[in-house]
Amino acid sequence: MANQNKEFVKEITPQSEDFSRWYIDVIRKADLMDYAPVRGCIVFKPDGYELWEACQRELDRRFKETGHRNAYFPLFIPESFFQKEKEHVEGFNPELPWVTEVGDEKLEERLAIRPTSETIIGHMYAQWIQSYRDLPVLINQWANVVRWEKRTLPFLRTSEFLWQEGHTAHATAKEAEEEQRRMLDVYTEFVETVLAIPVYQGEKTPSEKFAGAVCTFSLEAMMKDGKALQAATSHYMGQNFAKGFEITFLDRDNVLKHVYTTSWGLSTRILGALIMVHGDDRGLALPPRIAPIQVVIVPIGPQKDRERVLTHATNLLSQVRQAGVRVNMDAREDFSPGWKFNEYEMRGVPVRLEVGPRDMEKSQVVLVRRDTGDKEFVPEAQLQSRLSDLLDEIQKNMFVQAKQFQKENSHVVHSLSELVETLNTKRGFVLAGWCGDDACETAVKQECGATSRNIPFNPPEHLDTCVVCGKPAQHSVWFAKAY
Amino acid sequence: MANQNKEFVKEITPQSEDFSRWYIDVIRKADLMDYAPVRGCIVFKPDGYELWEACQRELDRRFKETGHRNAYFPLFIPESFFQKEKEHVEGFNPELPWVTEVGDEKLEERLAIRPTSETIIGHMYAQWIQSYRDLPVLINQWANVVRWEKRTLPFLRTSEFLWQEGHTAHATAKEAEEEQRRMLDVYTEFVETVLAIPVYQGEKTPSEKFAGAVCTFSLEAMMKDGKALQAATSHYMGQNFAKGFEITFLDRDNVLKHVYTTSWGLSTRILGALIMVHGDDRGLALPPRIAPIQVVIVPIGPQKDRERVLTHATNLLSQVRQAGVRVNMDAREDFSPGWKFNEYEMRGVPVRLEVGPRDMEKSQVVLVRRDTGDKEFVPEAQLQSRLSDLLDEIQKNMFVQAKQFQKENSHVVHSLSELVETLNTKRGFVLAGWCGDDACETAVKQECGATSRNIPFNPPEHLDTCVVCGKPAQHSVWFAKAY
Repeated sequence: MANQNKEFVKEITPQSEDFSRWYIDVIRKADLMDYAPVRGCIVFKPDGYELWEACQRELDRRFKETGHRNAYFPLFIPESFFQKEKEHVEGFNPELPWVTEVGDEKLEERLAIRPTSETIIGHMYAQWIQSYRDLPVLINQWANVVRWEKRTLPFLRTSEFLWQEGHTAHATAKEAEEEQRRMLDVYTEFVETVLAIPVYQGEKTPSEKFAGAVCTFSLEAMMKDGKALQAATSHYMGQNFAKGFEITFLDRDNVLKHVYTTSWGLSTRILGALIMVHGDDRGLALPPRIAPIQVVIVPIGPQKDRERVLTHATNLLSQVRQAGVRVNMDAREDFSPGWKFNEYEMRGVPVRLEVGPRDMEKSQVVLVRRDTGDKEFVPEAQLQSRLSDLLDEIQKNMFVQAKQFQKENSHVVHSLSELVETLNTKRGFVLAGWCGDDACETAVKQECGATSRNIPFNPPEHLDTCVVCGKPAQHSVWFAKAY
Repeated sequence: MANQNKEFVKEITPQSEDFSRWYIDVIRKADLMDYAPVRGCIVFKPDGYELWEACQRELDRRFKETGHRNAYFPLFIPESFFQKEKEHVEGFNPELPWVTEVGDEKLEERLAIRPTSETIIGHMYAQWIQSYRDLPVLINQWANVVRWEKRTLPFLRTSEFLWQEGHTAHATAKEAEEEQRRMLDVYTEFVETVLAIPVYQGEKTPSEKFAGAVCTFSLEAMMKDGKALQAATSHYMGQNFAKGFEITFLDRDNVLKHVYTTSWGLSTRILGALIMVHGDDRGLALPPRIAPIQVVIVPIGPQKDRERVLTHATNLLSQVRQAGVRVNMDAREDFSPGWKFNEYEMRGVPVRLEVGPRDMEKSQVVLVRRDTGDKEFVPEAQLQSRLSDLLDEIQKNMFVQAKQFQKENSHVVHSLSELVETLNTKRGFVLAGWCGDDACETAVKQECGATSRNIPFNPPEHLDTCVVCGKPAQHSVWFAKAY
């Protein structure tokens, strides 16, 4: 399927000129999405959806390896359910779409479209859990959810989005807290090693935690414009939802107790992070482990050699495919090699393999890396092992580059004026001391629009003094402008 | 996670006593689903959802092998979209849930929750397709859809259900019709070879076709109570949706034309078919190719031998797993072997492997088939190859048994009275001649509650006379009571 939308984007706006424009240009030109005729909704086109499918495969395996099973709960949540956890209803109410009628009939009780499923899952768990023998319950759901956001941006913030939400119930606080941390680590491993995106692990401040949670952990990634993107969250609910929904169990000691619950989620907004962490002025750049196509073969050379080059390239294609590499060949005649080189660079394919008559004479091929642009000649006999190594090198290099960028753009500040100046003159995150008072957190936001991202588990420095009020700091906090 | 609901079902009602009761007993006891607190909705519990995941894997691979790619379109469809294809709106209007407000604000235009996505996809295709070079468009979507049904039944008919919907656009009627047939054949191959469910392929009569289609093909399966279940459909829309949504392309001859579209879907109702085609009074029976667990190992013998039997069984477990078989072991001490035998029979696991001290002495294991109950002693050295053969035999036998049942309960009739008597005294389908007049089709329904299922591509007989009016028959039609 050729693509019309793409053609509107003649040139990608350089990142340095207008990062937001660059982002939209890239996702349109690479054909990842289209705007839908419903406010704030997008269509995930095949090239975009394929990236999400790859994320799903990787995460689903990890969830199952850690003992979770998938299930599916209803899209609709009765209005009364939202009243059962007070903070939860306040947090989500303004964003809820309501079904009020079916066909020509009014419903007796309005139904919300799920913004997240704690409530309906809590209702079911109350029926499923009776005894300590029923615990833990370890369930994940892949689903669409809806939050009617005011400002929307493709992938990053859309009215409807796709995600997974894990919901677990445990006999003790300790087990639930271990689960909360375990799943944050599962996300971290996936985001860092598969997506090559370095993150700061940490805890959200009370004002930024999930509505209804006791404690929220998050992964914060840094985009190339220095802004933060929350890549995943893992919540410890304590007994809040258990009490709201009466999820109780008879413990070994014969006492009826409320369970402890967690939930954790990662959504399609991660695709925005993937694009904004690795992309450049030439377009997308995909880490090999997530790239749907890892290698594209482009046969080159004059028309007279076309047939034998093609035969040879087709051979290489099946060799490389047999080695387990995701590879395609573009043998179209109506596009020049130069056009194809640009096209696959724009689409972020990690490696281009060129082969022409002169290469054939020398029994070699040309490999070109998307990440560095480096070109190398590889003897055909070594192609499989070299490709395998090269894909690993690219994966590692992309992480190292992103990590380097993260480090260079993470600043430690010691006063509010330094914080404001740093955020006004430099891109990135700032680490600042914080006394723990909401007012001081709000003050930072009012001064420069930066919000607290998280309280890192491993801060680069431990700061003594609150950056706003000068009282002793309880935490060192990452602040940044955020998506 | 243990299961509470299950415990309510002490004994499964025999099929002969009350088939509907049997169905509900089995799906509850096997822990496949639970009723949700929203009218007509269910929760897919892990054991039920796992069956759907297996269907997804199998189908998704087949869709991709036939050139389709996945995408994702919005859940919400603006009201005005439904007006663009007249038959479509009439068909779906009574079942549509409407979002009329978000937070505290009324929406200007009501949004329907998708019952199917022809309209919103049509809208997008109109923008994506300009030239013959953009065709064909071959897209599939995995999604939840909602149809507010009056009568609901778990899996078979629920307000919200899960499905896939393929939507394709083509330059010519011929290509679209080929696609319609190709996908019906893909479904047939999946349903017959993986689910071991024999089906009748055929065309729906005009009164039963999809709202907006020119022609609908269906697969009709026969449940063990003789009732029909539509297992999948494939629709040829001609240019109906293309005209409603102005999906046009500039053809090679430089003339602007409307495209031809198809759509095709298979939903979670297929799980109902799987249960009702193979299940028996002992519970579920799953064909090996779809069974999440193909073999369960149950160690047996007295307490004094427990440790060495367990060690041995664990060895067998890893041997069998390495051979690519989906195998589990149940070594729980607080359940007797007899209880476990019943439990895994009820859950439909195709093969039980028993091993105890006496078997160990003889270097053998015992294999027991779920489908026939046959028991055999197998030398350990031959275990892997025997298991592989046995799973194939079970798969084939389950299809043969179901095919035999389908044949025995398919009747050919030559008059309305014979049709009515057959359907009143025997279970199953009846093939009858039909003149093509809606009135005659309706007459059959009024006489005995049977609806036309489809006009089979390969009827067992070609009938000359309409079973109602006696005029020459245009078609031989399957009639049956249906889910």
